[in-house]
Amino acid sequence: MSVLEETKASATESTLMTGEQYEESLRKLNLKIYLQGELVTNPVDHPIIRPSMNSVKMTYELAQDPQYTDLMTAKSHLTGKTVNRFCHLHQSTEDLVKKVKMQRLLGQKTAACFQRCVGMDAINAVDSTTFEMDQKLGTNYHERFQNFLLKMQENDWTVDGAMTDPKGDRGLSPSKQTDPDMYVHVVEKRADGIVVRGAKAHQTGAINSHQILVMPTISMTAEDADYAVAFVAPSDAEGIYYIYGRQSCDTRKLEGGSIDVGNKKFGGHEALMVFDNVFIPWENVLMCGEYEFSGVLVERFAGYHRQSYGGCKVGVGDVLIGAAALAADYNGAAKASHVKDKLIEMMHLNETLYACGISCSAEGSKTASGTYLINMLLANVCKQNVTRFPYEIARLAEDIAGGLMVTMPSEKDLHSPEIGKIVEKYFQGVASVPTEQRMRVLRLIENLTLGTAAVGYRTESMHGAGSPQAQRIMISRQGNLAAKKELAKNIAGIEEKK
Amino acid sequence: MSVLEETKASATESTLMTGEQYEESLRKLNLKIYLQGELVTNPVDHPIIRPSMNSVKMTYELAQDPQYTDLMTAKSHLTGKTVNRFCHLHQSTEDLVKKVKMQRLLGQKTAACFQRCVGMDAINAVDSTTFEMDQKLGTNYHERFQNFLLKMQENDWTVDGAMTDPKGDRGLSPSKQTDPDMYVHVVEKRADGIVVRGAKAHQTGAINSHQILVMPTISMTAEDADYAVAFVAPSDAEGIYYIYGRQSCDTRKLEGGSIDVGNKKFGGHEALMVFDNVFIPWENVLMCGEYEFSGVLVERFAGYHRQSYGGCKVGVGDVLIGAAALAADYNGAAKASHVKDKLIEMMHLNETLYACGISCSAEGSKTASGTYLINMLLANVCKQNVTRFPYEIARLAEDIAGGLMVTMPSEKDLHSPEIGKIVEKYFQGVASVPTEQRMRVLRLIENLTLGTAAVGYRTESMHGAGSPQAQRIMISRQGNLAAKKELAKNIAGIEEKK
Amino acid sequence: MSVLEETKASATESTLMTGEQYEESLRKLNLKIYLQGELVTNPVDHPIIRPSMNSVKMTYELAQDPQYTDLMTAKSHLTGKTVNRFCHLHQSTEDLVKKVKMQRLLGQKTAACFQRCVGMDAINAVDSTTFEMDQKLGTNYHERFQNFLLKMQENDWTVDGAMTDPKGDRGLSPSKQTDPDMYVHVVEKRADGIVVRGAKAHQTGAINSHQILVMPTISMTAEDADYAVAFVAPSDAEGIYYIYGRQSCDTRKLEGGSIDVGNKKFGGHEALMVFDNVFIPWENVLMCGEYEFSGVLVERFAGYHRQSYGGCKVGVGDVLIGAAALAADYNGAAKASHVKDKLIEMMHLNETLYACGISCSAEGSKTASGTYLINMLLANVCKQNVTRFPYEIARLAEDIAGGLMVTMPSEKDLHSPEIGKIVEKYFQGVASVPTEQRMRVLRLIENLTLGTAAVGYRTESMHGAGSPQAQRIMISRQGNLAAKKELAKNIAGIEEKK
Amino acid sequence: MSVLEETKASATESTLMTGEQYEESLRKLNLKIYLQGELVTNPVDHPIIRPSMNSVKMTYELAQDPQYTDLMTAKSHLTGKTVNRFCHLHQSTEDLVKKVKMQRLLGQKTAACFQRCVGMDAINAVDSTTFEMDQKLGTNYHERFQNFLLKMQENDWTVDGAMTDPKGDRGLSPSKQTDPDMYVHVVEKRADGIVVRGAKAHQTGAINSHQILVMPTISMTAEDADYAVAFVAPSDAEGIYYIYGRQSCDTRKLEGGSIDVGNKKFGGHEALMVFDNVFIPWENVLMCGEYEFSGVLVERFAGYHRQSYGGCKVGVGDVLIGAAALAADYNGAAKASHVKDKLIEMMHLNETLYACGISCSAEGSKTASGTYLINMLLANVCKQNVTRFPYEIARLAEDIAGGLMVTMPSEKDLHSPEIGKIVEKYFQGVASVPTEQRMRVLRLIENLTLGTAAVGYRTESMHGAGSPQAQRIMISRQGNLAAKKELAKNIAGIEEKK
Repeated sequence: MSVLEETKASATESTLMTGEQYEESLRKLNLKIYLQGELVTNPVDHPIIRPSMNSVKMTYELAQDPQYTDLMTAKSHLTGKTVNRFCHLHQSTEDLVKKVKMQRLLGQKTAACFQRCVGMDAINAVDSTTFEMDQKLGTNYHERFQNFLLKMQENDWTVDGAMTDPKGDRGLSPSKQTDPDMYVHVVEKRADGIVVRGAKAHQTGAINSHQILVMPTISMTAEDADYAVAFVAPSDAEGIYYIYGRQSCDTRKLEGGSIDVGNKKFGGHEALMVFDNVFIPWENVLMCGEYEFSGVLVERFAGYHRQSYGGCKVGVGDVLIGAAALAADYNGAAKASHVKDKLIEMMHLNETLYACGISCSAEGSKTASGTYLINMLLANVCKQNVTRFPYEIARLAEDIAGGLMVTMPSEKDLHSPEIGKIVEKYFQGVASVPTEQRMRVLRLIENLTLGTAAVGYRTESMHGAGSPQAQRIMISRQGNLAAKKELAKNIAGIEEKK
Repeated sequence: MSVLEETKASATESTLMTGEQYEESLRKLNLKIYLQGELVTNPVDHPIIRPSMNSVKMTYELAQDPQYTDLMTAKSHLTGKTVNRFCHLHQSTEDLVKKVKMQRLLGQKTAACFQRCVGMDAINAVDSTTFEMDQKLGTNYHERFQNFLLKMQENDWTVDGAMTDPKGDRGLSPSKQTDPDMYVHVVEKRADGIVVRGAKAHQTGAINSHQILVMPTISMTAEDADYAVAFVAPSDAEGIYYIYGRQSCDTRKLEGGSIDVGNKKFGGHEALMVFDNVFIPWENVLMCGEYEFSGVLVERFAGYHRQSYGGCKVGVGDVLIGAAALAADYNGAAKASHVKDKLIEMMHLNETLYACGISCSAEGSKTASGTYLINMLLANVCKQNVTRFPYEIARLAEDIAGGLMVTMPSEKDLHSPEIGKIVEKYFQGVASVPTEQRMRVLRLIENLTLGTAAVGYRTESMHGAGSPQAQRIMISRQGNLAAKKELAKNIAGIEEKK
Repeated sequence: MSVLEETKASATESTLMTGEQYEESLRKLNLKIYLQGELVTNPVDHPIIRPSMNSVKMTYELAQDPQYTDLMTAKSHLTGKTVNRFCHLHQSTEDLVKKVKMQRLLGQKTAACFQRCVGMDAINAVDSTTFEMDQKLGTNYHERFQNFLLKMQENDWTVDGAMTDPKGDRGLSPSKQTDPDMYVHVVEKRADGIVVRGAKAHQTGAINSHQILVMPTISMTAEDADYAVAFVAPSDAEGIYYIYGRQSCDTRKLEGGSIDVGNKKFGGHEALMVFDNVFIPWENVLMCGEYEFSGVLVERFAGYHRQSYGGCKVGVGDVLIGAAALAADYNGAAKASHVKDKLIEMMHLNETLYACGISCSAEGSKTASGTYLINMLLANVCKQNVTRFPYEIARLAEDIAGGLMVTMPSEKDLHSPEIGKIVEKYFQGVASVPTEQRMRVLRLIENLTLGTAAVGYRTESMHGAGSPQAQRIMISRQGNLAAKKELAKNIAGIEEKK
Repeated sequence: MSVLEETKASATESTLMTGEQYEESLRKLNLKIYLQGELVTNPVDHPIIRPSMNSVKMTYELAQDPQYTDLMTAKSHLTGKTVNRFCHLHQSTEDLVKKVKMQRLLGQKTAACFQRCVGMDAINAVDSTTFEMDQKLGTNYHERFQNFLLKMQENDWTVDGAMTDPKGDRGLSPSKQTDPDMYVHVVEKRADGIVVRGAKAHQTGAINSHQILVMPTISMTAEDADYAVAFVAPSDAEGIYYIYGRQSCDTRKLEGGSIDVGNKKFGGHEALMVFDNVFIPWENVLMCGEYEFSGVLVERFAGYHRQSYGGCKVGVGDVLIGAAALAADYNGAAKASHVKDKLIEMMHLNETLYACGISCSAEGSKTASGTYLINMLLANVCKQNVTRFPYEIARLAEDIAGGLMVTMPSEKDLHSPEIGKIVEKYFQGVASVPTEQRMRVLRLIENLTLGTAAVGYRTESMHGAGSPQAQRIMISRQGNLAAKKELAKNIAGIEEKK
């Protein structure tokens, strides 16, 4: 029996882990993580890391909830089993649309980055790309990939789709950098596999992942062939370690309270993932020197991930809009026409992002491997808007919230026996709402506009899945300006001499 | 045999008229039209009106073109015959998406308003509304409507969906106006029908229509019951006459040239349609006093029409973007990075509108009558963006076009034996492009940003299908702010005492 | 006695012409003007040209009005006589500020381009530039210029400051163009003067000017020395002729009414000014080959003219805002909170432009010749905002005006014995306001957003005094980014190794 | 001798304190401050508070620097002595302009809020208001105020101008609040003075002030007369205490490093200032029941403070722009045209704010007391732009900075013996720039966009000196819409019947 047949034949009809099982599975990993200069012994329970784990865990928990089955799970096209949608290859435009809706749901439930999208987007991009590589070059990467995918689905893995290299000097190509390791590259090819060195930066959710799927980060030419490398590896493989990125207000999570953190339960993280001469057996290698396919792989991963932002950031936006509306309720300003109008504007902008996420999905199309790809033009348009509208939504939220959001004392003051009553007295808004509730909602808005979640809602809306200029280049390529010129000539009555 | 059975049994499999047949059919109408204070004897050949007729004609011509069959035609759910999509009730979300694509196509081919959408949007709104009226009230409006629809499909009619009343004082309801005729209303109920009086303003394409389908324009209450009236009538019925609206640069069409008009072939129009005690037989009455359904009818027509703008204006935008790119080519500025970036921005904005049009279609749903309705929130978001982005696209087009667009002499100067050579000489851009071509493309941009087509591309993007504030009210209603507040409370840890 | 002494000694204390005298002085000119392919015999009374003459005439009329003396006139620094401020060299920052206020006033009174600024801006730029040329090169251009200025002040001339060449291929320098005449250049140097050929495009107010002051249009290098030429000439000099630029809705002025034109009395114009081997005596030559000074002359003229827009367009904006407010009054929508808020936004944007105009004036400084120059960074910032905000103000005006602005019938319909009553009836807004008034204000808004005045309020706000990219280049040069980096290093604690 | 005569006669010609003297003077205060629930014993050296003190200290240090004498100091109109400009009443529009330039300078030097403006703005507002009160009501508040001002100038005090009350339910007036203390009010009038209770929120720099000048926060009516109270008091008066507001990333200052804080030396703060039955002797009372003057006092203070933002935020913007430019230099992206264009846009927006600050100053006018007031319309326009442009500048800074700004590890990682080298290696940009420098500049950008300084650069730009809607109301009042309507009627030819 092939791996596939064996897997199909296995007893279960569903491969879903519970949240608890996911948490336990992470405890078994042997990750090497540095945070604030120290090696972390128990990442799962570390107060700074924990909220990000909770967000990923939510992707497991909601998949167990019958009301979300349709969005959170799918039937594997390989085995027919029920798998978490994050482990699924999109088999239709309906699948693409459901992906976006799932992401909006999770954004609403976590008000944070739930991190698991990078793996989903990576497998979908790698699937069609390796299929086409094999067709053209006679390689067998697609089979290797499918074997990995089967294991991923069977084990309900969270996978870190790792693309972005540190890049060093932006004006130089990988092989022209002063330090050859600024992009992940093959340092040795052996009979049993390859050895890689380098790093991947900004790795979202890396610490909460079972496996990593490494891809090149830019389109490459022959001279950069050693940098055209893709592979999978366990997240705790020998030679891999992590340096945890710090976020605005990250240490508030060490203070022990529940108000000032804004979002006590959920968060996100990024890390630098270092490959210190890591050995990858051939069966896990998915590209090795086929530089001409690096561009298409990057474009597709980026395209899927730009679609993703039309779901997840919309969900977070829903929470921020709700929080702003509550803040207005709590200080008696909800009926002011300018407040109502600002809330409408926030909803309008947020739904425009959603419209973009939905449309690039509904307009998706089938690739040669059978996996569905989003409409690339609309996916880039989606992300381009994401680099703008969350900033405006955040600005409007700060407008409605009022200055108190940034001048309020700490929750320790609220709970102080000495001055707690004074804090309660003077920060009361409408008489019927306890001051603590008002503080909670203002801290949530602070969290999303200035704090740990602002990293996700603002800066990563800007740079995640590619910085704004990357989308503009794609829009330029996909916009078919030549055809538009022909339309204009027809209308204007311009006939060119041949 | 019922009307339906008879119709099904008729010989043809397709009911499509050719463009020529359409033009001929118009000549047979006996419309009473005033233009510049004069009664127009032959509207079809009137140089000011003709271009708007050509735009509607294009909806017939493209339906004959095999490459556009899928977008331009549909299978009637009543008879199974092939009908023009403008006569079709949407039977699926796929139909809704195809509608938007058809509209973008026609916008690209005409760079103008092709006018026939109002009828399509009206029949789709009236279908589900009359169905629900009958279900609730025991009336038989839906059957009457279906009989009309059959004839519309059989005859491939262009129908004017007429909604907007003059409204008089915006601060007063219909029955409170000083002049009772500021909204169309029933002045007499007879055994054989009703007599109506009033007017519909801003009637797009009225002069090019075979029939009109009149609907109320706002949500009404009991005291306005006489104003809650809907019906169909031939466009040349006794007592109906039209006053043609003038447009910026309309009289350039009387000058006889082909350059200064910008778009020689195509245009659009609006007119005031006056009902001077018009008799409507009962079989053509579709609402008469059921004020509680006026709101839903308005919302649905407006919703469909707000979706429409996510197609047609995008098509016109394609032409304008192409024209701007040509203008840059023609004066040697195409390689400037700021010009390229502006073109990208124009495409980005235009595709954002398209994304909104597609998404509200893909997220459509089935009504009780079986006809599909767009997602109302997203359709309103779509139109709200249409009130903004075409203005910015136009501004960028003017930026790229350069000042010459508004300081250029007339084509009579270009063709003057005395100074034609001088015009040619000094308005040459890059040496390889004839000055005439440059003038043509600049006049096209002028047409779309300042001229006759600016009426459609700018002001009607603003007010067509409802002014911006109307969409904001709908977004407020549909945005479910209460649910968003609950999301925020969950994240912030706010528990309210019961 | 020198020219100056003679002039001082002349009897009058004021050199101001009345409006009537101005009109008469134009009748004496022998201008050769083509319009719509025909030679115009009497430009002053031509219905298309006349409104633009009226705007210039207003600069004479208001100077006669005691309440505006302070803004409209100044004391000549040469003769001590009272001169029209348009003939004055700015002697202080107070003068610069008054210039802007005069322009706002005239914008308010004409709702159009009053054209005379180009001459004022040209003399101020030429004064300091020729002074510095003479100092460095030992030429005597400044004396020649002063002699011209004396005559200009004595005769209260309107002068066309002519800068913009047709430019042909934007990718090529003057001497590299296929046609050598795409920039004005010296074709012959003679003992008594020079002969020039070429053209100046987009010449604002050329037809209403007594004299022209020609300047080069770009910074030049040695190979373009023949193109570095500046001079003065009578507007009707031998070999000069004009081709009148057409504007949106220009022919409405031929229709004979007073409503549809929007602004019956005032307008603006641009023309192509052709130099067909024109002889210029040396005493009128102000630059001839000194290419190294072409850049500074361009920058200063552009700088003054960019300041101007912070006055004139603000005045026009005042009229548009007032018109939008009236439109809301007339249809009963004035109390809607969204209408009030849009009017506030329009005022906010308009005053921001004014703030820029004032600030670059108040921050002006003295040049070597004694004439005051605006702050160049702020003047460019001013104009950059002018390329944006009038578009948004216009968009908001169209929003408030409603669709009727572009669907309304002509005034011939209003005055028709047959249907005039119907037009009156159905286009009535609030009952107390005659329909004609409503039509008038809507036509004024149309005029400013789509019609003849939109050419000035929109497209020329974009391109007049240099297209947006020209300002960005200047902002980049003047913004002192290096100093800003040092500030950042100080704060960030970055110490660079030497 | 009067107080004034005595003061004039005192020996010194300058009253300026050094920075050290200022610091020492603060140590002598006996302030009662709560921070994170604890009473602070030594605020001057508290690591969270200290940077804000350093910012105020800079206002003393720069006044000692000869190159800044003109901006930082002024000649007292009372004594003729040289005083710090922060203690000066504006005697001319030149003074108003210099104020703005001083603020830009301090923003550049601190990249933070330097807090001392509130006192300067308060004394200028109180001066003219008390003068007018006395004139109208026969009170003697102005003399009391002048005595205070003399002491302020003599002692070179930093004064907290305290206006904003907690406000409770925004829908209710002061006397209608459930808790009567939501606005500061008089609880007892005694022969020797008054007793006040309540609190002032968002008190900028309160902890670094010698004195406080309390003003009412809104326009009031007779029923709120007890709330119409203004007075001065020592900042450590009996019954006054402070609760320190927490800021994003505030506790990074406790970590001991110099990189992650972004701006090691400077900062700002706000605090709640509580009045727990504080006794104010009559000589310090400046308003007590004269409710009809509360509105004008609020308007003037707000007006001056809205002007201020056109200086200070521009200076901070200069630093942010410089930091973004450095970030681009450090990663090799500085030559990309889109990066250059974004920097231009940032400068353009920043200078637009400056233009507004300058213009409202240059257009200032003399009040009855002789003190100059800014142009109120332009000052409100200035602040309205400040609620928008810093957000866009920050967004563009984040765009240029790249995602690393929020994914970078801590400086403890950089300095770790174990992984420091790895951090250095992989976060290197261009080879010539040490990684530490790159981290420093990215942390500075983080500080200004998300961290402690974002509180000042973003949220306080929004709400300081009044929230956006407050400016809109003032623009509406000051914009003279009625005059604009008249302009429009004149142009449109509308004549109303009398």
